[in-house]
Amino acid sequence: MRSSQPSELTQKIESQKIRLQIHKIIFDADTPISRGFDIALLVAILLSILGMMLESVPEISEKWHDELVLFDWVLTIAFSIEYILRIWTTGNPKRYILSFYGIVDLLSILPTYLAFFFVGAQSLSVIRAVRLLRVFRILKLVQFVGEANNLIRAVKASANKIIVFLAFVLIISTIVGTVMFLVEGGENGFTSIPRSIYWAVVTLTTVGYGDISPATPLGQFLSVILMILGYGVIAVPTGLVTADAIKNSVKDTIKETSVNIISCPNCNSEKNSKSAKYCSECGTYLY
Amino acid sequence: MRSSQPSELTQKIESQKIRLQIHKIIFDADTPISRGFDIALLVAILLSILGMMLESVPEISEKWHDELVLFDWVLTIAFSIEYILRIWTTGNPKRYILSFYGIVDLLSILPTYLAFFFVGAQSLSVIRAVRLLRVFRILKLVQFVGEANNLIRAVKASANKIIVFLAFVLIISTIVGTVMFLVEGGENGFTSIPRSIYWAVVTLTTVGYGDISPATPLGQFLSVILMILGYGVIAVPTGLVTADAIKNSVKDTIKETSVNIISCPNCNSEKNSKSAKYCSECGTYLY
Amino acid sequence: MRSSQPSELTQKIESQKIRLQIHKIIFDADTPISRGFDIALLVAILLSILGMMLESVPEISEKWHDELVLFDWVLTIAFSIEYILRIWTTGNPKRYILSFYGIVDLLSILPTYLAFFFVGAQSLSVIRAVRLLRVFRILKLVQFVGEANNLIRAVKASANKIIVFLAFVLIISTIVGTVMFLVEGGENGFTSIPRSIYWAVVTLTTVGYGDISPATPLGQFLSVILMILGYGVIAVPTGLVTADAIKNSVKDTIKETSVNIISCPNCNSEKNSKSAKYCSECGTYLY
Amino acid sequence: MRSSQPSELTQKIESQKIRLQIHKIIFDADTPISRGFDIALLVAILLSILGMMLESVPEISEKWHDELVLFDWVLTIAFSIEYILRIWTTGNPKRYILSFYGIVDLLSILPTYLAFFFVGAQSLSVIRAVRLLRVFRILKLVQFVGEANNLIRAVKASANKIIVFLAFVLIISTIVGTVMFLVEGGENGFTSIPRSIYWAVVTLTTVGYGDISPATPLGQFLSVILMILGYGVIAVPTGLVTADAIKNSVKDTIKETSVNIISCPNCNSEKNSKSAKYCSECGTYLY
Repeated sequence: MRSSQPSELTQKIESQKIRLQIHKIIFDADTPISRGFDIALLVAILLSILGMMLESVPEISEKWHDELVLFDWVLTIAFSIEYILRIWTTGNPKRYILSFYGIVDLLSILPTYLAFFFVGAQSLSVIRAVRLLRVFRILKLVQFVGEANNLIRAVKASANKIIVFLAFVLIISTIVGTVMFLVEGGENGFTSIPRSIYWAVVTLTTVGYGDISPATPLGQFLSVILMILGYGVIAVPTGLVTADAIKNSVKDTIKETSVNIISCPNCNSEKNSKSAKYCSECGTYLY
Repeated sequence: MRSSQPSELTQKIESQKIRLQIHKIIFDADTPISRGFDIALLVAILLSILGMMLESVPEISEKWHDELVLFDWVLTIAFSIEYILRIWTTGNPKRYILSFYGIVDLLSILPTYLAFFFVGAQSLSVIRAVRLLRVFRILKLVQFVGEANNLIRAVKASANKIIVFLAFVLIISTIVGTVMFLVEGGENGFTSIPRSIYWAVVTLTTVGYGDISPATPLGQFLSVILMILGYGVIAVPTGLVTADAIKNSVKDTIKETSVNIISCPNCNSEKNSKSAKYCSECGTYLY
Repeated sequence: MRSSQPSELTQKIESQKIRLQIHKIIFDADTPISRGFDIALLVAILLSILGMMLESVPEISEKWHDELVLFDWVLTIAFSIEYILRIWTTGNPKRYILSFYGIVDLLSILPTYLAFFFVGAQSLSVIRAVRLLRVFRILKLVQFVGEANNLIRAVKASANKIIVFLAFVLIISTIVGTVMFLVEGGENGFTSIPRSIYWAVVTLTTVGYGDISPATPLGQFLSVILMILGYGVIAVPTGLVTADAIKNSVKDTIKETSVNIISCPNCNSEKNSKSAKYCSECGTYLY
Repeated sequence: MRSSQPSELTQKIESQKIRLQIHKIIFDADTPISRGFDIALLVAILLSILGMMLESVPEISEKWHDELVLFDWVLTIAFSIEYILRIWTTGNPKRYILSFYGIVDLLSILPTYLAFFFVGAQSLSVIRAVRLLRVFRILKLVQFVGEANNLIRAVKASANKIIVFLAFVLIISTIVGTVMFLVEGGENGFTSIPRSIYWAVVTLTTVGYGDISPATPLGQFLSVILMILGYGVIAVPTGLVTADAIKNSVKDTIKETSVNIISCPNCNSEKNSKSAKYCSECGTYLY
């Protein structure tokens, strides 16, 4: 069987080559093929989420039950192939399987199989919703994300301020909620303190469902104060976040500008822009 | 019949002249007459929309049915004459008819005629609502639009940021909506995932109709987090948009400030700041 | 009766003197007495409004009817005396009577008298609500108004931007309202186009009463877009208004700073701050 | 008994020492032990509030009544010991007892004891909600508060502007509320002027419960104006607050920039900018 050895080796090398190529297609995003794969995957994920949403609508799931099941199976098998390819082509299968996205990928396909083998497992089908998280992996690779990064950076830069503000909102809501529980009582929907706090947050954030609303004059008076507070105070975090955003924007501008300044070798004047040929202070020729 | 020939030519020239004058009145906005025409048209459009609105109110349409029909016919005929004049006076009738505003103009008058000839076509009458779009053509010509352009420019400049932010809002809403579908279930109004997402958007944007509202403690707890998020995070896009607006505003100010630049009497360079003693381009002593 | 003449003159002078003093008390705000008068008047107006509010609450007006009527009479008589004094002491009674505040003052007292003489005039009593407008006259004189003026100036400076933005909100609401009238129809509360526009404004401004809310999937989808638009786009006028506010703030700061610069009599350098003793460019002694 | 004297003295000194140590643990926050005490106290307070909240939920209080009562007693006794220790270790017990936090501490423990001795006093148990205020004392000592201080400073700096704005909101609400009371009347929920003002605030602040909503066309038209006003005008205080925040931010930056100042070798004046050639105070040539 010696003759088979080189063939086996070639096969192995060939297999390794294919593995690398598939790895490149699946994990990278810089060749047209891998970009095509990303877009196809994105479409498949969005379609599977759409299918899951439609399945949750009673009228649709009754009428199109078989079509939706078939549709789910097609996508689940495609995702299963992708999952196996990912395990096969990655250098460290264990690390991938136990990584955040590895678990998400598994949870995306498991419920369909479980629902097939076990009757009671049908209720697990909603776990497929984790497929939504897979979108983020693809988004990571897309160019458009530059702007998103700016947004995330702005959120991070002001995170402390926003957290403190929201803590303040929660403390106010707790106090007002407790007071309203005493003032309004259970007859008007304020049946417990947690429920009253829920109402206070609904009011302070200007959401205002109206599922619970004050009925006594005193309760309405307190609500008025809470609403006006919620309406007016939002200006404060906005102001602080904006001031931060502008500060960073100004710093960037200054950096751009300061790069353009050169010092004179004769008089050390720092008033010359990069494009100057003679020093504006002593007239020395620059460069 | 030779004698009629010059008269025909004169007629043709006369007709051409009238055509040009009408074209000027209808399409331009720089003479008093054409401005008057624009204002009359604006009033006619707004009146026709008002008529259509009143027609949609059952109590009014029952009482004043004949008056509203007559009113609609008067305006439709006027718009028809305008439409014919536009076709006649424009240099390229085909292009006008197939243009966006050409189609809008046709759709503005067609339903009334169709409803007259075909009994079933009455339901088409709501298509007349496209008349509203005609307002934009006139607005385009009005001076006041300068400020609107500023606003549109500001929206465009920050469009990417706002789109990314809104995409973020949609993703959060989809995730929270799906979770709430699992948590609350159909008894509390969360009958399907799309409906739950609808609820999440209603909550995150602080609209809060209250047609669906969480009833379980866990659902209310998640709602509280969603509300506070929606209430606090709006500061971020506001901050970014404001920073952009200010950057532009500062750039304009810097341009204005460039008045502090003096030109060199030797090389006419305009790169010297007012405080420079030697020209940065040729080294000439300034002053 | 000659002896009576000087007495009459004295009386007239005396009367004139009192008139001037009362005029000063009523119309000015720079002496302690006239300030006291303003505060007393403010309290009286606020009390009369409070009385009117309480009168409108069925439970209270039934129980305390006589007390509230008496209370209203006391205040009405006081306001009547004030009205007569204003006519008597002002230089131009006709101008005062026909002025905005003159009419407001009259409307504040008339309903009570009319309700006394004519039985049917009782329903006029709500006109007394105009008393609220009298508060503004007094507020005008109060120091605290400086900050309010800043606010009004900021509103005025950005008025055009805000109006264009609100016009944009109205146009969007009209279009979406008409579309929703077609999509949802009367069964779901969208009974007429004006009512649908009312709903669109309720949604776009994130108020969200919930008295009308979309029930069809398409209607809910359109609502979601409208809500997200309303939630995200508010950042734009905020950004523009803020940029304006900052521009003005920066201008003020520059003005303050530029006052502090003096030019050197020897070398005309403008780099010296007001506190400098020697020119930083040529070393000349300054003052 | 002479031999007992030094022992008594030692005891007194020992007691004094312990008192000081306890005082340090309770009132300070700079040693590890006192920090641990603060954290333990914070947890205890939050747990006691959680217990109180759970007690207010009918389903939970029925099932776990005995456990919750026991839990409350444990915490109340712990707080009582803390209260006694605070009185014992503080230098001025009377001042502590009558201080704001002294009263809060007493009100935190009293209701549990009163409910034990008097049957009717059970309703007092909600007064324990004041325990929430105790959180602030501990928060005062925590590092994290730096950001909160910034927020509070920003609120204080813009307090006048926000108050004037909110006063404006209240005046508008009062006027619109009164008008709506006349327009809509009691059948549509606008049963009294205070209730109508409550509705106006609910609308202007974009909360929009929907417990009261306009039903007449005129009322809906007025509501539309009020909503659009509330939606658009919030940009104004936001703009002003932001301008303030930026002004302060710029001032800080300028201070930092003052690094560009050099001191005169002759007179040590620090008023010279880096670009100055002669000292502005004594005229000495610099460099």
